[in-house]
Amino acid sequence: MKEIRITNVRVIDLRFPTSREQIGSDAVNKDPDYSAAYCILETDAGISGHGLTFTLGRGTELCAEALRYLAQPIVGRTLSSITEKMGAFSAEVVGDTQFRWLGPEKGVIHLAAAALINAVWDLYARVEGKPLWRLLAELSPTQIADAIDFRYITDVLTREEAIALLTERRAGYEERLKHLAATGYPAYTTSPGWFGFSDEKIIRLCNEALADGWTHFKLKVGGDPADDLRRARLVRKCIGPDNKLMVDANQKWDVNEAIERTRSLSEVDLWWMEEPTSPDDILGHARIRREVRPVRIATGEHCHNRVMFKQLLQAEAIDVCQIDSCRLAGVSENLAVILMAAKFGVPVCPHAGGVGLCEYVQHLSAFDYLCVSTTMENRVTEFVDHLHEHFVDPVRIERGRYMLPQQPGYSIEIKPETLRDYSYPDGKVWK
Amino acid sequence: MKEIRITNVRVIDLRFPTSREQIGSDAVNKDPDYSAAYCILETDAGISGHGLTFTLGRGTELCAEALRYLAQPIVGRTLSSITEKMGAFSAEVVGDTQFRWLGPEKGVIHLAAAALINAVWDLYARVEGKPLWRLLAELSPTQIADAIDFRYITDVLTREEAIALLTERRAGYEERLKHLAATGYPAYTTSPGWFGFSDEKIIRLCNEALADGWTHFKLKVGGDPADDLRRARLVRKCIGPDNKLMVDANQKWDVNEAIERTRSLSEVDLWWMEEPTSPDDILGHARIRREVRPVRIATGEHCHNRVMFKQLLQAEAIDVCQIDSCRLAGVSENLAVILMAAKFGVPVCPHAGGVGLCEYVQHLSAFDYLCVSTTMENRVTEFVDHLHEHFVDPVRIERGRYMLPQQPGYSIEIKPETLRDYSYPDGKVWK
Repeated sequence: MKEIRITNVRVIDLRFPTSREQIGSDAVNKDPDYSAAYCILETDAGISGHGLTFTLGRGTELCAEALRYLAQPIVGRTLSSITEKMGAFSAEVVGDTQFRWLGPEKGVIHLAAAALINAVWDLYARVEGKPLWRLLAELSPTQIADAIDFRYITDVLTREEAIALLTERRAGYEERLKHLAATGYPAYTTSPGWFGFSDEKIIRLCNEALADGWTHFKLKVGGDPADDLRRARLVRKCIGPDNKLMVDANQKWDVNEAIERTRSLSEVDLWWMEEPTSPDDILGHARIRREVRPVRIATGEHCHNRVMFKQLLQAEAIDVCQIDSCRLAGVSENLAVILMAAKFGVPVCPHAGGVGLCEYVQHLSAFDYLCVSTTMENRVTEFVDHLHEHFVDPVRIERGRYMLPQQPGYSIEIKPETLRDYSYPDGKVWK
Repeated sequence: MKEIRITNVRVIDLRFPTSREQIGSDAVNKDPDYSAAYCILETDAGISGHGLTFTLGRGTELCAEALRYLAQPIVGRTLSSITEKMGAFSAEVVGDTQFRWLGPEKGVIHLAAAALINAVWDLYARVEGKPLWRLLAELSPTQIADAIDFRYITDVLTREEAIALLTERRAGYEERLKHLAATGYPAYTTSPGWFGFSDEKIIRLCNEALADGWTHFKLKVGGDPADDLRRARLVRKCIGPDNKLMVDANQKWDVNEAIERTRSLSEVDLWWMEEPTSPDDILGHARIRREVRPVRIATGEHCHNRVMFKQLLQAEAIDVCQIDSCRLAGVSENLAVILMAAKFGVPVCPHAGGVGLCEYVQHLSAFDYLCVSTTMENRVTEFVDHLHEHFVDPVRIERGRYMLPQQPGYSIEIKPETLRDYSYPDGKVWK
C-alpha cells in the first residue's frame, strides 16, 4: 500500500439550533443546541478522515480551538506511523506536557482529543476500505492491544490479559457476523421521552415507536416527583408490561435523594435507572445500586476516562456500562473500556443521540458483539432520531435495531452543505 | 454600605517563561511555563477584584476564553447580590446549561470558574477592608454555609452538619488567632527538589533551606528507580533524621508500580508519598495506602471537585488532603472540602507553588486553623519560592512559616507592569 501522508487538518465549529424545539431537553440540560467540533484530516491521497466531538452549543469554540492545537503535530506524518500503534498515539495526544494540566484526560481537552483520534480511525478504515467495525474485527488481538493506552488500568487489565481475552472470544466469530448482518444490533429509543415534551406528545411518540417495532423505551425524569411518576406510568401503560422501560435522571439528584426517587419510580418496573447522581460519584453510584436492588444502575455518558470506568467496575457501581464515543478519547479508549467491562461481565450499552453519536457507536457495539462480549443479551444501544439527515452514511434502523453499516469509515462524515450552513457563527442558519 | 456594582471584567492571558530554567519540572510536567488566566472585576466604586487560575502555558488561552464567557452574567450585578449567597453563585457559574456538558465541574471550564469565583471573594474582602482569611473567620457559621454549594455532598456533609461543626469549633478562636499571628502557619518547601535539578543543585538548595529554618522538604520522584533512591538518600542525608521528607511522583505510576516504588523509597523515612498514580483513581489510592503503610498518601492538586474529594475521604484513600485554590472552583468549593476533611479527621495541606498559589492558600490554611481544624498538628502548607516578586502583596515567610497576610483581599493582585510585560503573546517577554 502506498504511504499516505496527512497534509492538513480543517476544524469546523458546527451547531444545530435544537433548543428551539426542546429536542434533547432533560432535567439538567434544559436547552441544548446540539453541536460538534468537527475535523477533517486531509491527505496526499485524495482521501480524508472525519471526526467530531459532541457538545451542547456554547463552548464548542473551546473544543474547536483545543482540537486545532492537538492536531498540529500530525500534519506531515504518515498515516501508518500513527495507526501501527494507536495506543501510543493516544498517549501522545493526551500527554502534551503543558495541555495535560488542564485535565488530565477530562473536560474540553479530552473531548477535543476524541474528535482527533476518531478522525484518524475513520481515515484508517477508509484507507483499508472497511467500515470501522470490520477494521476492528479483522485486527489481530495483538493489534487491538497496540491500539490501547493501558496506562493507569494495568491493575485490572494488562495488555496480556486483553490479548488472551480477545483470543479466547474469537470462536464463533463467523456465526455471529452472519447473525448480526441478518438481524442487526438491538437498540432502544429515547426520542419519545424528552423532558420538555407534553404528555400528549409522549403518548403519540410512544405509539409511533411501538408501531415501528421498538421494544425498549427511555424516559427523562428528575423533575417534580409526582410529574415523574405520572409520566412514567403513562409510558408504562402505553408500552404494556412486556416492553422495557428505562428512566434517566441526568445527574439531577444527591445520593440519598436518588435512592428515594428510584425506589418510588420502581413501581413501573424499571429496566434501569440512568445517571441518578454526579457522574464523578463512583461510591455514590455503588451505594445507590446496593440500596435500590433489583433496579439496575446505568451511567457513563459523562464518565470521562478509562480510570473512572475502571473504578465503576471495581466498586460494583453499575449494571450497565454506557460508553460514549467522544467523551472518552475516541475508539482507542473505548476499546479499553469494552474489554474491562467484559472482564467484569458488565454489559456495554453505549450512550448515543446528540449529533453523530448513533453513527459512531453502532460500530463499537458491533465490534463488542463480534469480538468481545459475544452476546446481545441485556445489550441495547441508544437511538435518538435527530439530525441523521446531515450524514453522508447515516444509521439504518429496522424494527428497533441498528443494521450493520457497510461503507468504509466510521460513518461520521457530515454533508458539505451542512458543514457550510450550520457552521458557527457564519453559516446561514446562524446569521 | 453603599451598593457596589460590577461594571466590567478584564481578562488577561499571562505567561512566565519558567521552562527555560527547569523550574517546576517533575516526572510528568517536564517543561511548564507557569501561567495564569487572570481577571479583574472593575466596579463603580473604584475598587477592583482580582482572580486567577494557574496553568502551565499552552492552553491558557482556553481558560481565558472560558473565563470571559463565565464572567458575562456578572457585569451589571451588585456585589452584595452575589456575596450574600456565594454558594448559589458558585452553582450558577458551574451550572450553565450548555457549558456544563464540557465538564461538568472539571477541566478548562472549572479552572476558569475558579478564577472568577476567587475574584469575587477578593473583591468582597477588599470592600470589607479585610484580608480574606479574616473575612472568612468573621463570617458566621450560617454565612459560611451560605457560601457553599452542597450539591452532591449531602450524603457526607449537610448544611446543618457544617453549621454545627463550625459552631462547635468556635471555642478558643481568640487564642488561636494570637498564636497564628505570632508564629505563622507551618510550611514546607518544594524549591530544592525539582526533577530537572542536578544533585549538586539539590544539595546546595537544601543547605540554604536548612539555614533559612525549613524543617519539611519535598523531592520530586518518578524517574529511574535508582536515580530516585539516590536523590532521596541525598536529601535525607543533607537534612538529617529529624526533619521531614516527602516525595512527589506527580501521577507517574500505575497502581502496582506505585506500591513497589513507594516501598522501595520508604527506607528514607517518608513523611508522605504524593500523587503516586492517576488523580482520578480513588480506589487505586486507597489500595496503595493500604499496601504501603505506614507511609502516608497525599493527593489533591489535580482532584477536580468536591465530589472527588468526598470519595477520597470516604474510601480512606488519603492521609493528607491537598486542596488546590484554583483546581477546585475557588474559595467556595475549598470551604466544602476543608469541612469534609475536618469531619473525617484528615489534615488539609494545601498544594501551592506555580504562580499565585502560595498567595492564595495561606488564607485558606489560616481559616482552616482558626475555625475548622483548630490545630497545626501534621499540617503544612506548600511553599515554592518563585514569582512572588510579581505580586502587590506577596507572601511573607519567616523560618519556614507563612506569616498572616494583613492587606485587604486575597493577596492575588499582580503588579500592573507584570500584567503588561508577561501578557501573552503581546507582552515584551514573549515578543
